[in-house]
Amino acid sequence: MKVGIIGATGYGGLELIRLLHNHPEIERLDLFTSSDEGSVFSNKYTHLLNIHDEPLLKIEHDRLTDYDVLFTSTPSGVSTELLPPLIGKGPKLIDLSGDFRLKDAVEYEQWYKKTPAPAEAIEKSEYGLTEWNENAIVQAPLIANPGCYPTAVLLSLLPLIKENLIDATQLVIDAKSGISGAGNKPNQMTNYSETNENTAIYKLHQHQHIPEIEQAIQTFANQTSPITFTTHLVPMTRGILATSYAPVNEGVTEKQLTNVLQEAYANHPFVRIIKDTNKFGTNQVYGSNFCDIHVKVDLRTNRATIVSVIDNLVKGAAGQAIQNMNVQFNLDQTTGLKHVPLFI
Amino acid sequence: MKVGIIGATGYGGLELIRLLHNHPEIERLDLFTSSDEGSVFSNKYTHLLNIHDEPLLKIEHDRLTDYDVLFTSTPSGVSTELLPPLIGKGPKLIDLSGDFRLKDAVEYEQWYKKTPAPAEAIEKSEYGLTEWNENAIVQAPLIANPGCYPTAVLLSLLPLIKENLIDATQLVIDAKSGISGAGNKPNQMTNYSETNENTAIYKLHQHQHIPEIEQAIQTFANQTSPITFTTHLVPMTRGILATSYAPVNEGVTEKQLTNVLQEAYANHPFVRIIKDTNKFGTNQVYGSNFCDIHVKVDLRTNRATIVSVIDNLVKGAAGQAIQNMNVQFNLDQTTGLKHVPLFI
Amino acid sequence: MKVGIIGATGYGGLELIRLLHNHPEIERLDLFTSSDEGSVFSNKYTHLLNIHDEPLLKIEHDRLTDYDVLFTSTPSGVSTELLPPLIGKGPKLIDLSGDFRLKDAVEYEQWYKKTPAPAEAIEKSEYGLTEWNENAIVQAPLIANPGCYPTAVLLSLLPLIKENLIDATQLVIDAKSGISGAGNKPNQMTNYSETNENTAIYKLHQHQHIPEIEQAIQTFANQTSPITFTTHLVPMTRGILATSYAPVNEGVTEKQLTNVLQEAYANHPFVRIIKDTNKFGTNQVYGSNFCDIHVKVDLRTNRATIVSVIDNLVKGAAGQAIQNMNVQFNLDQTTGLKHVPLFI
Amino acid sequence: MKVGIIGATGYGGLELIRLLHNHPEIERLDLFTSSDEGSVFSNKYTHLLNIHDEPLLKIEHDRLTDYDVLFTSTPSGVSTELLPPLIGKGPKLIDLSGDFRLKDAVEYEQWYKKTPAPAEAIEKSEYGLTEWNENAIVQAPLIANPGCYPTAVLLSLLPLIKENLIDATQLVIDAKSGISGAGNKPNQMTNYSETNENTAIYKLHQHQHIPEIEQAIQTFANQTSPITFTTHLVPMTRGILATSYAPVNEGVTEKQLTNVLQEAYANHPFVRIIKDTNKFGTNQVYGSNFCDIHVKVDLRTNRATIVSVIDNLVKGAAGQAIQNMNVQFNLDQTTGLKHVPLFI
Repeated sequence: MKVGIIGATGYGGLELIRLLHNHPEIERLDLFTSSDEGSVFSNKYTHLLNIHDEPLLKIEHDRLTDYDVLFTSTPSGVSTELLPPLIGKGPKLIDLSGDFRLKDAVEYEQWYKKTPAPAEAIEKSEYGLTEWNENAIVQAPLIANPGCYPTAVLLSLLPLIKENLIDATQLVIDAKSGISGAGNKPNQMTNYSETNENTAIYKLHQHQHIPEIEQAIQTFANQTSPITFTTHLVPMTRGILATSYAPVNEGVTEKQLTNVLQEAYANHPFVRIIKDTNKFGTNQVYGSNFCDIHVKVDLRTNRATIVSVIDNLVKGAAGQAIQNMNVQFNLDQTTGLKHVPLFI
Repeated sequence: MKVGIIGATGYGGLELIRLLHNHPEIERLDLFTSSDEGSVFSNKYTHLLNIHDEPLLKIEHDRLTDYDVLFTSTPSGVSTELLPPLIGKGPKLIDLSGDFRLKDAVEYEQWYKKTPAPAEAIEKSEYGLTEWNENAIVQAPLIANPGCYPTAVLLSLLPLIKENLIDATQLVIDAKSGISGAGNKPNQMTNYSETNENTAIYKLHQHQHIPEIEQAIQTFANQTSPITFTTHLVPMTRGILATSYAPVNEGVTEKQLTNVLQEAYANHPFVRIIKDTNKFGTNQVYGSNFCDIHVKVDLRTNRATIVSVIDNLVKGAAGQAIQNMNVQFNLDQTTGLKHVPLFI
Repeated sequence: MKVGIIGATGYGGLELIRLLHNHPEIERLDLFTSSDEGSVFSNKYTHLLNIHDEPLLKIEHDRLTDYDVLFTSTPSGVSTELLPPLIGKGPKLIDLSGDFRLKDAVEYEQWYKKTPAPAEAIEKSEYGLTEWNENAIVQAPLIANPGCYPTAVLLSLLPLIKENLIDATQLVIDAKSGISGAGNKPNQMTNYSETNENTAIYKLHQHQHIPEIEQAIQTFANQTSPITFTTHLVPMTRGILATSYAPVNEGVTEKQLTNVLQEAYANHPFVRIIKDTNKFGTNQVYGSNFCDIHVKVDLRTNRATIVSVIDNLVKGAAGQAIQNMNVQFNLDQTTGLKHVPLFI
Repeated sequence: MKVGIIGATGYGGLELIRLLHNHPEIERLDLFTSSDEGSVFSNKYTHLLNIHDEPLLKIEHDRLTDYDVLFTSTPSGVSTELLPPLIGKGPKLIDLSGDFRLKDAVEYEQWYKKTPAPAEAIEKSEYGLTEWNENAIVQAPLIANPGCYPTAVLLSLLPLIKENLIDATQLVIDAKSGISGAGNKPNQMTNYSETNENTAIYKLHQHQHIPEIEQAIQTFANQTSPITFTTHLVPMTRGILATSYAPVNEGVTEKQLTNVLQEAYANHPFVRIIKDTNKFGTNQVYGSNFCDIHVKVDLRTNRATIVSVIDNLVKGAAGQAIQNMNVQFNLDQTTGLKHVPLFI
């Protein structure tokens, strides 16, 4: 397979390079740039010396159609213009930005403050939450790869909402993320000295992943109600831990919740249900494509606490994108993604 | 004033030393130990060289009665036995452990798995949440200094619950803490390599601060209902950020919530209400006795998100203990506690 | 005393604010800006709410002469132009930038790549390494406050070189710094995700503190030879640890080295000599104005290892600047600087 | 191949598991324990769920001889007794502890304070610095896998000393390590709150890796002189950066140093020479088996600064051990070790 990455210098792009270089079915991997054409990538990113020493290529329509797969890992608004002309022209398109995730153009404009992608392109795209949309993904010319927060949240909640075990109308989701989610562009928020030794809440009630989560709950679990969703930055590079709270429905037990989760993912190797645990954290999945889930019911309040962890750059971005590529090319989903978590 | 600290080597004890050494009314500060009698404290804790070079003293009843104030910063169960005989014998007693916080002995046993303190001692003690209990504190021979999590949570919620602005029956509290809250005794959970680059949930639904928070809500805001409260460890040393969620009651606006908080703490210099903010975190209060609070209503869900931050070792432990001492001795509450947050 | 800070939003400036707000002799503290005139400082830096709520003032020559002391904490090249017209016009000037540190204009240009300050201004300025230049500091209208690295290095080495105990011609100095030394302006080097979990060497053999250290060795210890000095970034916010290596001269013992250091600083409360220690680090001095020093001779190689630690923002910047102000106004050097190290 | 790991719960052991589970030639991987026989490993280390769910096996001589390779990752003194009876009994033995590294038993006792291994066993063992000892490794029944610090130091210095380009009699080596090098046993030194935001020097002039480095310089570069070597802990989990200083010999240029390093490792895929770089750090190699080296001559002092970085758990432990296994079984050295560095 011939694969191209557009937006290689972002953290999503760098992670795609890391994972694709060990993917056994990739015979050629090219990096595209809008600005640094011709420069040797490993001169700047010296950790890739002897791994990727090829020069960056210019983004040109004719050249791009020559690939089997194109990944775009670009800031909001870039894919909107770049990808529509490439639909159906040859390469499978897998977009890691948020440009094609929301079906409702008005909602996109409202949350992203950008011009939405053309309606026909949106229609042809499919949401790439692999475990929940495999049949659609296999056909689609364009995959809207899910956001990092939605991936962690949806995988843990969809089975419980779909089976009507928890009250989705009273859902509260408190998410904590490492800093790499903010991208590689330096700004005050990600400046080391103001981020280290600091746990902070940001974009309160305004994160663009809110409509994405709500849309997916409607699509895959058929329930509609607004959610309370907050995002926090914690002083670490990788990892998301999402803690979700909802009343359990009448008569539902912790055992049932655990069982439904286990059944839902019995044939999905990247989702693991962790049962007895005193401390459950993001290092469980560090560097891997796993999403681990733990659930517990508080009998005093009759509320379930559902906790899920992912590596935001892997299952929350580049890993899931490759998992989707595997699905599209009828490869085993775990091809090139069998990384054991680093843990320490 | 002559002041003694029992349990000087714990992190609460070390922070008491840090703060008390610059307290203008302290003329003598002695450290007591159960094991290392006679050893010079600054030989082991060399950061205190030329600051506290006196030898550790043995814990002896007769010697202890000679102080104006005794702080105990000891593991659960120690104060239970040590303090009751000292009540009314001279020194004001300020206990930083959890031994005297719960009025209900059965509840104490259930959550702490230890023998409760004698009922008469419990009765004579007062809960040291300074801003809410000043009149009682000024008289009491024994102060049960609040836990770190309860301090952050209660200061932000009590005014809103008391004024009936939010629905306390549906309260969800998601708390994140730095690692110093786990104390100075090495264990697997606080071992650097398993804590760094890891955000984790622990003691799910079982943290002993749950009954403490519920009791204080009943005492100070007159509402009784169990809460959902979870605790997370984030990779930093100091700081707690508590994110609390509750539906706002009919007709209540964000402005009202903010106003009620501002009025509640208008005369309390350590509690600050932060209004417009994009990123709000624990570095706001690092090293200081402040508790900063931010509140926002999500109109989509009609739910308020209330966020509060403290330095767990200062307002969450040693700082509030000294604030209580100041109250008892009719000093300005900020005496010795005017530290500007480090921020970076 | 009336004090002004120019460059308040840099990390040096923020630390000056933190320390000066608790300085007992300051009756007025004003902040000056080149860009944000009129804006309320605590609106942006909310950790200063209720502490510094005054609006930023415009930098105007006539207004500036009205202060007793002016601190400049500005990027290289700003003081060069701003301060010369203010010399002798009233305020004592204490410059935290590198603009007045090097007496040799050619050297300044070579290392800083900027136009040097006027020669007369350089002549009137004195190097503010307090412990070594007190008599000059007390008179000088303009203090060139030392760099962070030079402070850590010089305090530990000057007594040993001056007494001819180590061979300064073979000096190797390996310095490690927290990230706050790089300032508050976001850039790739200080972006959290590339700095966290990364220890790196930078500016190899090219750091502008090299000529500053060499000049001070010549001035205060009368020896001239180039040094090998390297700088590393370690993933923490505050702190510098400098490890210096030099052969001990014939017959010199470890005990002598320790004694000479102890005698040199017997009357200098901010420099502490730490003797027996298994682990010696920057948390010793965190948040304080101390410089702690430890020395050990390796009998196998006849070489001394001299280790010193400071908080780069305190003794390495704002703290020493205030210490110099205290000297100039005949206050006790420790006035407003009695902070106990945080340690944890 | 059938592979066993003794000491699976240490950080070296966990890293062996991580790497071996993706090694294409391993058909069976068993974990041995001295204490927890029968317990399921992934119950405690839940990050290994669905990866290694087999129960721990008891360490029994007869059972152990059944493997092709045995890795021991145990505290000092354990291999000393465990391995000698297994020599020549079937499995290749690869010891990650320091028990067989020093050829001189007196030296071992002096630095390790333990009884040395039997002389015949020491004789039969070979030092596993792969790039420098391949021929011996391929034959040896027992490999003494190098320490983490020696690996970083030796790979960068041996070519330069061997070719007589730098003056090895004046070598100063300043090494910085992440905390995982201290192992998984909780102690005060690795307790998060005292390690975070702290760069510290420890075991000054007394680290047991000193004689190991000196012995290897003698063996592979034929020079004998004691070195100055210091070790620092920096607040990160993984990574070692070693900064070495030595005068360059008469007429030697930076270009020569770089060329000699490049030639020395031209056929060694895990050692990379990084030329132009402004910032060079441990994140270059994070999670990978690379050792990256950068060298620069300071013309002002005629001294070379040689910098090398490794991931202490990979090239400094488990990765190099597997590289040695590959050599012994005539596999390509990179088999199972092609990880791209995580970088962020």
